[in-house]
Amino acid sequence: MDELSLVSAIRACCGGKGRGVALGIGDDCAILRLGRGEELLATTDFVIEDVHFRRKTHTAADVGWKALGRGLSDVAAMGGEARWALVSLALPKWAGLRWVKGFYEGVGELGTKFGVSVVGGDVTRSEKLTADVVVLGVSPMGEALRRTGARVGDGIYVSGALGHAAVSGYREKPAPRLELGRKLRGKASACMDLSDGLALDLRRMCEESGVSAWLDGVLPAAPGATLEQALGGGEDYELLCTIPEGVLAPRGLTRIGTVQKGKAGEVWFAGVKMGAAGWDPFR
Amino acid sequence: MDELSLVSAIRACCGGKGRGVALGIGDDCAILRLGRGEELLATTDFVIEDVHFRRKTHTAADVGWKALGRGLSDVAAMGGEARWALVSLALPKWAGLRWVKGFYEGVGELGTKFGVSVVGGDVTRSEKLTADVVVLGVSPMGEALRRTGARVGDGIYVSGALGHAAVSGYREKPAPRLELGRKLRGKASACMDLSDGLALDLRRMCEESGVSAWLDGVLPAAPGATLEQALGGGEDYELLCTIPEGVLAPRGLTRIGTVQKGKAGEVWFAGVKMGAAGWDPFR
Repeated sequence: MDELSLVSAIRACCGGKGRGVALGIGDDCAILRLGRGEELLATTDFVIEDVHFRRKTHTAADVGWKALGRGLSDVAAMGGEARWALVSLALPKWAGLRWVKGFYEGVGELGTKFGVSVVGGDVTRSEKLTADVVVLGVSPMGEALRRTGARVGDGIYVSGALGHAAVSGYREKPAPRLELGRKLRGKASACMDLSDGLALDLRRMCEESGVSAWLDGVLPAAPGATLEQALGGGEDYELLCTIPEGVLAPRGLTRIGTVQKGKAGEVWFAGVKMGAAGWDPFR
Repeated sequence: MDELSLVSAIRACCGGKGRGVALGIGDDCAILRLGRGEELLATTDFVIEDVHFRRKTHTAADVGWKALGRGLSDVAAMGGEARWALVSLALPKWAGLRWVKGFYEGVGELGTKFGVSVVGGDVTRSEKLTADVVVLGVSPMGEALRRTGARVGDGIYVSGALGHAAVSGYREKPAPRLELGRKLRGKASACMDLSDGLALDLRRMCEESGVSAWLDGVLPAAPGATLEQALGGGEDYELLCTIPEGVLAPRGLTRIGTVQKGKAGEVWFAGVKMGAAGWDPFR
């Protein structure tokens, strides 16, 4: 396997020209065109062997899906439309061309669902398999959702069920909530995706918004999920948002509490102040 | 060190708002605005411990400079203006907050020179230090330079001197040729940056353009560089371009040969057909 045969395999898998792609894989940069009145959304995420996945439990396609899924979920959280991806791989000796093709099949399967085309990336060597996926999306100028806008009195909502990733042993393929995110534009005062667990992510949103949160104590837990998994399981890639009183929440959301005054970042669950449970790779 | 203290350190280092930055570090995505008539350039590059640098020979600031420099050079090769960067770090235990701050100082020093602001990234754990830097730039619509446009009869040019990175033991700080790249818009028929050595990179340009190259046998070698280093050293981050006869080459370029008919990708040096020397991490 040399770099040229790798790049050929990647081009074969991801060669289709997507919307706004003036130049895709194979040059020094991709050239991309936004529509009038659109602004750019940009996010990047690592997926690393033995940190975010294990060879024994994840196929190459699982890893590809997950690597793209993390970025798509970030664009969903901004209410944006995902459009392009740059997919980089640092490969250990065990990962041959077959693994690489499987990985790009996973990327391609998820990308096709949401109209996202792979337009670039980097390939090199490493000891542990390391993927880094950049997702670029667009949003109508000034309408992207942020995590800083939660106001006292707003309802706190989550999409879907919580803890499903933990119940699956983190082997499920995350389904980014892009459609729901777009429906939240003009409705949600703040929004983010749940990557590290409700407890930690809600704390972050409250810190950024300078508010505190009161959770009623009833959560839409996934079948089989413990309360600990629903609160701290992580990798659910559901949306967490706040919506002002009087604004109708889109379908697919469950109200779990209310934004309140108090120390920025504090989260109360059924009357008890919560610790900062959740996944932090540095602890 | 937890994730929050890391993100605080990064924000402190890279918090300044740059041109077109509607939202920088700290949310799910960065929000960026292009000017009218601009198209987006996007590139991403890994810098990995023991593949692209060694702890013993590179300071944290060296690694930061190099990680950003690779992407800036890609934007230079397209004739673009670099504007934003997303900087991701996967950190082993040995790299504490002091190393991270040093790294971002290196990123910041180079970024400031070229008006590039850090608007996002990712931080996580790994066994070997791994940086991935995305550079986003802009170019006037339709004017970006590509590596596919070399035509028979065009002159072949390189900027600066060749082999200087190899002479320095790959410890020098690369100087991306952004100003020169912009001057090549409307003049060069093809352009790319020299990251893996003239022999390999010229072969790539010729393959992409469907032409062959004739080098006269005299190269602007860096002081102390052997011919092997000038041809195959890599990491010089000079520009390689082709310019049609009759078009005046900008200052800073040396003509080294001519594009000719022949098997796509073949490179002749002083009458001898060259092998594919150069740096390929997969060989």
